[in-house]
Amino acid sequence: MGEFDVITRYFSSLGSGEYVDLSVGDDGAALTVPPNSELIVSTDSSVLDTHFTDDLFPEDLGYKAVASAASDLAAMGAEPLGMTLALTVPSVDDLWLHGLSQGLTRACHEYRLPLVGGDTTRGPLSLTLTVMGFCPRNQKLLRSGAQVGDRVCVSGYLGDAAFGLAVMQGKYRGLEIDFEDQEYLVSRFTHPTARVDLGCRMRKLATSCIDLSDGLLQDAGHVTHASGVRFSIQSGAVPLSSALISAVGEAQALEFALNGGEDYELLFTLPPETDVPDELTVIGTVEAGEGVHCDVMSRGQGYDHFH
Amino acid sequence: MGEFDVITRYFSSLGSGEYVDLSVGDDGAALTVPPNSELIVSTDSSVLDTHFTDDLFPEDLGYKAVASAASDLAAMGAEPLGMTLALTVPSVDDLWLHGLSQGLTRACHEYRLPLVGGDTTRGPLSLTLTVMGFCPRNQKLLRSGAQVGDRVCVSGYLGDAAFGLAVMQGKYRGLEIDFEDQEYLVSRFTHPTARVDLGCRMRKLATSCIDLSDGLLQDAGHVTHASGVRFSIQSGAVPLSSALISAVGEAQALEFALNGGEDYELLFTLPPETDVPDELTVIGTVEAGEGVHCDVMSRGQGYDHFH
Repeated sequence: MGEFDVITRYFSSLGSGEYVDLSVGDDGAALTVPPNSELIVSTDSSVLDTHFTDDLFPEDLGYKAVASAASDLAAMGAEPLGMTLALTVPSVDDLWLHGLSQGLTRACHEYRLPLVGGDTTRGPLSLTLTVMGFCPRNQKLLRSGAQVGDRVCVSGYLGDAAFGLAVMQGKYRGLEIDFEDQEYLVSRFTHPTARVDLGCRMRKLATSCIDLSDGLLQDAGHVTHASGVRFSIQSGAVPLSSALISAVGEAQALEFALNGGEDYELLFTLPPETDVPDELTVIGTVEAGEGVHCDVMSRGQGYDHFH
Repeated sequence: MGEFDVITRYFSSLGSGEYVDLSVGDDGAALTVPPNSELIVSTDSSVLDTHFTDDLFPEDLGYKAVASAASDLAAMGAEPLGMTLALTVPSVDDLWLHGLSQGLTRACHEYRLPLVGGDTTRGPLSLTLTVMGFCPRNQKLLRSGAQVGDRVCVSGYLGDAAFGLAVMQGKYRGLEIDFEDQEYLVSRFTHPTARVDLGCRMRKLATSCIDLSDGLLQDAGHVTHASGVRFSIQSGAVPLSSALISAVGEAQALEFALNGGEDYELLFTLPPETDVPDELTVIGTVEAGEGVHCDVMSRGQGYDHFH
């Protein structure tokens, strides 16, 4: 079976979209970037045994790879245009590829990210997604714009995905967890929600933004570093789901929220005069200084591939 | 050492260019696509033991990865905008990374492809490059436009890269080859030339285009298939370098040209009334029918990752 056939059979139905002029099948794809906007682009790899293990279903792998890539567009306030996939697989396993394509399909549609190009190669399992989006000129959200006096806000609940992963890994086998809570918590890891629409709506309101992929404290640290400010975070304000609190109690839940990763929620800084949208929770303030300070503990460490 | 440091140390100097608004360091990069043009995008992976072996110098790997990706832009008639790199390495080897960055740097400058984003991951060695370019609207070159009566043309000399690879692999140890010829032939494999400027100049002249990465016969077959035509190729017209003919004789040289790969020259079809530019050689004609026919042999097989 040729590489072209693999791409065509499983992925060619995913290639059409509002901004797609030409999809998979030529030397390159062609997209229309709306006038007076900037192209936003981001690349992410998921490598077996580094980012995921063999026991992750291919459906979940496909969905999660797209959602986490879309989350980078969300953090820039960018509207999705399309994406390319470089897929490296040890062999052509039809059942596995079918599962992967199902997860990709679901996420492609959910995040309006048609698959416009790709490369399929034999080798150790990995996926590299390059997502493209656009922003009206000079409206993109950056990490570097936080101002002293701003409030620090986050979307959703934090820590659920990190705990969901721990459950999948069998680390909490002794714990009695409500079945529906467990399903919800695991699904926050396998099917995170990229906040693409929220990112776009916050373009002219927020002074800075980042997506939370490596844990609140570590990612917040990227914003304070880029902006030259200090964050003071009130641990009591960090949004925790009732499912997570029920499962592990508030102290442990907070630990997952601060130092876990994979939430793919957004962190914004908002000027004092801006109304806080309903889906955001204020968790702290921007001050002069540097670093991220939290009232219960010193700065922890998130997940870093080379640590 | 954190992943961010790896990217920053070796690659951050490569991120500026005419169309780059924001480079490495935020959740995404921002590029300006000129008005009234289409964004062209292509993704290519190079995987250890599938596309290259351990004995390829990291400088060559870096250069070649960029040149082969730029070649896809050339084949679309696209002007380069920038690229992203997803780099997976088993460990942080400074000497190796330094070599890689030197090859990348040289090719980035040569092909005007600033490195605007990336992801560095631990895992089995591979590089995935996503290149972006632009074309004036409706001027992109496709595989599907060849017309009966057109002439088939190619740039440069074919077969040199495939023979250069064979030499590197020690397959021609007994053969007496002139030292300068050998250097030239190996360099055609390690440092192929992407014909970016030629592709752009041919936008309104050629009816179709493809870059020759898998061997003339196989790649020509993609054009005949997409265009619904037949190519009749005259073997005596296929351009062969004097270095390759000196090394292996004309018959073997032709075999490398037809079925070897990695030349990264461009194949165009040109209407009968169009002047053939100096850097192109006419090798055949477009006829009604299907497939690629060559007067010395039936259609051969190029390199296909899943064969």
